This record gives sequence, C-alpha cells and structure tokens, in this order.
Amino acid sequence: MDRPVGEKSSGAPTIVEVDLGNRSYPTDIGSGLLDQPELLQKHVHGKKVIVVTNTTIAPLYLDKVVEALTKGNPAVSVEYVILPDGEKFKDMDTLMKVFDKAIESRLDRRFTFVALGGGVIGDMCGFAAASFLHGVNFIQIPTTVMAQVDSSVGGKTGINHPLGKNLIGAFYQPQCVLIDTDTLDTLPDRELASGLAEVIKYGLIRDAEFFEWQEKNMEKLIARNPNALAYAIKRSCENKAEVVSLDEKESGLRATLNLGHTFGHAIETGFGYGQCLHGEAVATGTVMAVDMSYRLGWIDSSIVKRVDDILPRAKLPTASPETMTVEMFKSVMALDKKVADGLLRLILLKGPLGNCVFTGEYDRKALDDTLSAFCKS
Amino acid sequence: MDRPVGEKSSGAPTIVEVDLGNRSYPTDIGSGLLDQPELLQKHVHGKKVIVVTNTTIAPLYLDKVVEALTKGNPAVSVEYVILPDGEKFKDMDTLMKVFDKAIESRLDRRFTFVALGGGVIGDMCGFAAASFLHGVNFIQIPTTVMAQVDSSVGGKTGINHPLGKNLIGAFYQPQCVLIDTDTLDTLPDRELASGLAEVIKYGLIRDAEFFEWQEKNMEKLIARNPNALAYAIKRSCENKAEVVSLDEKESGLRATLNLGHTFGHAIETGFGYGQCLHGEAVATGTVMAVDMSYRLGWIDSSIVKRVDDILPRAKLPTASPETMTVEMFKSVMALDKKVADGLLRLILLKGPLGNCVFTGEYDRKALDDTLSAFCKS
Repeated sequence: MDRPVGEKSSGAPTIVEVDLGNRSYPTDIGSGLLDQPELLQKHVHGKKVIVVTNTTIAPLYLDKVVEALTKGNPAVSVEYVILPDGEKFKDMDTLMKVFDKAIESRLDRRFTFVALGGGVIGDMCGFAAASFLHGVNFIQIPTTVMAQVDSSVGGKTGINHPLGKNLIGAFYQPQCVLIDTDTLDTLPDRELASGLAEVIKYGLIRDAEFFEWQEKNMEKLIARNPNALAYAIKRSCENKAEVVSLDEKESGLRATLNLGHTFGHAIETGFGYGQCLHGEAVATGTVMAVDMSYRLGWIDSSIVKRVDDILPRAKLPTASPETMTVEMFKSVMALDKKVADGLLRLILLKGPLGNCVFTGEYDRKALDDTLSAFCKS
Repeated sequence: MDRPVGEKSSGAPTIVEVDLGNRSYPTDIGSGLLDQPELLQKHVHGKKVIVVTNTTIAPLYLDKVVEALTKGNPAVSVEYVILPDGEKFKDMDTLMKVFDKAIESRLDRRFTFVALGGGVIGDMCGFAAASFLHGVNFIQIPTTVMAQVDSSVGGKTGINHPLGKNLIGAFYQPQCVLIDTDTLDTLPDRELASGLAEVIKYGLIRDAEFFEWQEKNMEKLIARNPNALAYAIKRSCENKAEVVSLDEKESGLRATLNLGHTFGHAIETGFGYGQCLHGEAVATGTVMAVDMSYRLGWIDSSIVKRVDDILPRAKLPTASPETMTVEMFKSVMALDKKVADGLLRLILLKGPLGNCVFTGEYDRKALDDTLSAFCKS
C-alpha cells in the first residue's frame, strides 16, 4: 500500500492498465474521481452520451455523472436511460430498452455509452455498446465492490437467458473504467460482503500474499476503511487485468477466475436469481470447490480451515441453501460454459495456497461426495 | 476467367482468402461442393453442430448438408432450427429461437453453428454465434447470389430493429464460407436479379474492368450460365475480401461497399421490409447516388448512361417506388450509421468509372435535387 490504512486517498487516481494491444485501457481507482471531470471527458467520443443506470443508483449519482460529463464541455449532450434494478432484469427485454433509447436519440457511431451501476448495468450496457451499430464507445463507472473488482474488468458483457446466466453476450472492451471509491458509501452491507467473495477468490487462485493481507485486514474491509477498500480493489483489478491480458477470450487461464462459480451459478439458478447475491453463491461455491480439492488430496487441511475461517469474517455464507439438491446442482452444471465435449471442467485448488488448476481430469467420486456433503437430498 | 463461359465447373473449389490476421478464413466457390464432405468437416469444431436455416431452404438442402456434415464422421451429431423465411423475421424474437435451441441442445463452447440460407439466415446465425457463450464456431453456406457475393463475406452479423435495418449486431468472422453454386438452381429470378445489384456495385466503386465484363455478359448471368455466375461470384468475393481486409471494422474504406445503400435502406424502410428486395432497393439507390454524383459534377454523363443501361438488363428497377416522399428519405437517412456528429456521409462516384468517395463534404442542394427528382412529393 502507498498510504497507511485509515487515511482517505484523494487527488490523482491510481491507474491499473489492462494490456490488450490496441484495445488496452486504463482503470482509474480513487476517492473523489467523479469530481474531476477531465478523467471522464478525455474518454468521450463524439458529442452525445447516453448514461445507462438503474432506479437505485440514478437518485444517488446520476446528477454527479452528468455534471462530470458536461462541466466546461457545453458541446456534449447527455441523455440517460434508467432501468429497473436487479439481476432478474438482466434480460433481452430490458436490453431492448437501451437500444430503443439509443435509436430514439438518433445516435450515430460517434457517441458514448456510460454504464453507471453494478455488474448488471455494466454487463447490459457493455453488450448494448458491443451490439449497437456493430460497436460503439463505452465507459464503465462501477458502483459496487463486485463490479469494481470483477465484472467491470476484462470486457465480458452480456445478459441472462431464462435457462442460465450470462449465456448471451460478447467480449467487448471499454474505453476506460472509472472507480470512484466514494460510491461505496451508499452500498448496502450485504452487497459489500458479496463483492468481497471475489476479492478472496483472487487470493486463493493466484495471490497468497493478498490472501494473507485479507486475513489481517478483513475487519477493516467490513468496516469500510477507505484505504483498505482502495487497496483491495486495486490489487484485485491488478490480478484480473493480468489474467485477462494473458487470455482475453478465456481459452484457459481466464477460466480460473471462476473458482466457486460453477457451484455458485447452480445455486443462483436453483435458488432463483435475486434470492441470494452473486458473491454469496460464489462464497458457498468456493467452499465446495475447496472441499472437493481436499477430497482429491490436492490441498492440505490448513487451506480448508483458512477458507472456512475468512468467509464468515467477510459476512459470507459457507453452506448451500437448504432447498438445493444434488440433482439441481447436476442439471445446471451440465449447461456450464466450461463443459467441453460433454465433460465438466472445474477450477480446483492444487498445491500451496495461491495455486489452482482448470481441469476435467478428476475423480467423479470426489464431485459426487462434495455434492452429497452440501445437500440434504 | 479460368474456363470458357458455358462449361460447368466441378471438382476442387476456387478459394478466395479473406485476410484478417488470426481471424482469416477461406471462401470456397464451385459446383458440387456440398457433395465433398471434407470441405465442411475440416472446419467443424467439437462433436455437435446446429444448422440454422429457413422454411424455404430446409426442404431443398438441409438433408444434403446434414449428410455432408456426418458422412464418414459418426462422432458428430447434427441438430437444426428452421426459422420462418423473410427479412421481417430478422428480429430479436426469431434470434431468441436460435438461442433457445442451442441451450436446449446443451451445447458447450466447442460446437459449430452452420448458417444455411440467404443473407437473413447468415446475419442472424452469425450474430447468434457471436453472442452465444461469448462466441462459438461458425460456418456459412450462402444459397442466394446476394449472400454469396455480399453478406456472407466480411463478418457483419446482426438483426433489425423496428426502427431501422441492421442496427443491432457484431463483427464476427466465420471459420469458412462454402459457396456451392448449384444451390442457385432453385433461386427465384427476382432473387437472382437482386444479388446482381451488389455485383454491379463492385464494378462501379472499384473495378471498372469487372463492370465492362458485366456489360458484355449480363444476359449470360440472367440466363444462369454456371461459369458466368461462378466468375461473377468469385470476382465479387475478391473485391469484398480485399476491402474488408483493409478495413474490417468499417472506419472508412469499407463504407464504400454501401454505394446506393443509404438511399436503398430508406426505400426498404419506407416501403416496408419484404415489399421490395434488398438488391432492388440498392439498384434504385445506386441510380440516385449516380444522379447526385453527376449533379455535383463529379462524373461525366457516360457513366450515368451506362448505369441506366445495365440495371434494366439485370432486371433491376431504376425508379423509386411511387409512395416514397422526400420526407421519408430524409427521416430514415438521418438514422443512418454513416451519420457522424449529425452529418450524413454518402458514397458517391467521382472520376473515371471504378472510382468513388465516402464523404460528408458535398453541396446539400445536390442531395435535395436528387431526392426531388426521384419523389413525386
């Protein structure tokens, strides 16, 4: 960390570069960034902007963002579309509202979409930007920990299908990501915890030192210590940016970012979107992946214990919802994107803390035993 | 030409390479290609294929394509989805049927979409391939002249919005394009003529020698002389492939492929999709663009005359539908993708035959005069 924990950062942003050749872009991280109009304005193309946000975030930050886009910049006109809030609206009907607005506004290719909100808004607005007129300019302003540390980085955009999450979408990179950590002041506790599930994930799959830092600082994160949060966000973005730079289209390495997500998606689908938060499902999914890794003899019991210990400190669940059955897990997991030629590949821990594998070569019994251990039937 | 006109080609395909770095792919052109299973099979990834086709083409060629995919290749299973035929079904609802089928079939990333049909099928199936699981493998088998010489080459995929054509889509390249010229045997005369509008376009914008060849051979094309058609398709694909290689994402040069299309799209939209064929609208649009180029003093009258002469020989219209008004043209053209910061850029001929420009710098009066000349009100 650059500053002692507890002191609020301000001024120039910390920048994490996502290195993707001619599609590279910066992630600006810091406090008060929305009060610095030039940070946004230098990434706007054309004279028109559409801000895509939701009913929760609009009353909190829309005016601030419009001001940041227009201050000292009268040539730019800003319109906005306010969508209903929630994962269940991450669908084709809601996406069409974004297209409708863009067409009504007579936008041409030289305009900019701005996503203001959490992961749902970022994913939908990003897919709209990827698809409208075969691709237009796009800026992300994520306002949740989940979006700041995970979904806003790396260019995965898309919507859900009634039969599964994120089945329809595109890889599409933004012009920049602007993370103003002050937007977390209004984030509900449960959403904060949900985002921390992804922070913990980075430690487990590739950054043991970061995991150890979290073990020492989890209470500070939960108490919203600004510098602790800024550090966790920066280090998470660095981890994700490095993985994405090495494997943008998810041919292998990038899949490791899905630790706990295959089990987690089954919980979200089986339980119904919106009943549990994404990070809550991922937390339980992580415990299941760790349990399975241990059954395979790939990690020692100390890692199991450390995961079981840190998740409750982050206010995250470690047990599967009571209504989940082995059959529910299996039927959703069979649809997972990581199935190849019928074989389900999983991200599992292997070796010392901070190491994982993405593989379809494991003893099926270990998977069955883990599912049985986490389900009543 | 490699062979005298009139002798039917067969055997090994003529190959036009589309050079796009690591997304390069071949276009195979020839007679009897669907009887050579290896041509298709070498481009199939994974063990599952979904053929996307329509109610017109399925009874004619679906069995043949399924056989080409599976002959001597029992490991591959083929499913299909048969969509209603027509531009009016190139919409989000119909696209969702393709996603539904893919999800029902429990497809994973290692599978292949095959588009079997005209431009509507190719565009929709291509957008489905671009968007399903963030992008899967994709093969085009175009069965109309329009799709063979234009829409199947270059990776533009997408659907229409109620307010405008092709407003939603992606740039996404196939694994290969397979053009079996035998599939044209069942193409209605009006559809054949429609495709020739794009063939004529290549001559006008960049290939005067090809235009001169067409002036000598138009009656052979209309009479479906197999070698004349194969040559026109090959040379059109070469022209398009060259343009696309130089400007995949349409930052400039590629826009020149839209000669006549801005006027043409207005006719299609104003007249109602399906009332006139795309190439018919483009033919009239080309006459309008040529008229405007002449009013600007950018071409001499001999080019106007040659265009007015060749289009009727290709059974294509040169007048705007009677119901079109100046206002209808203007309101649709204002939504065109080539508008930049409010300024409509057009593709216009300039200089000797085979030369064009893509520009927003022209005298507005010439545009107004052309619109008035082609509309009753």
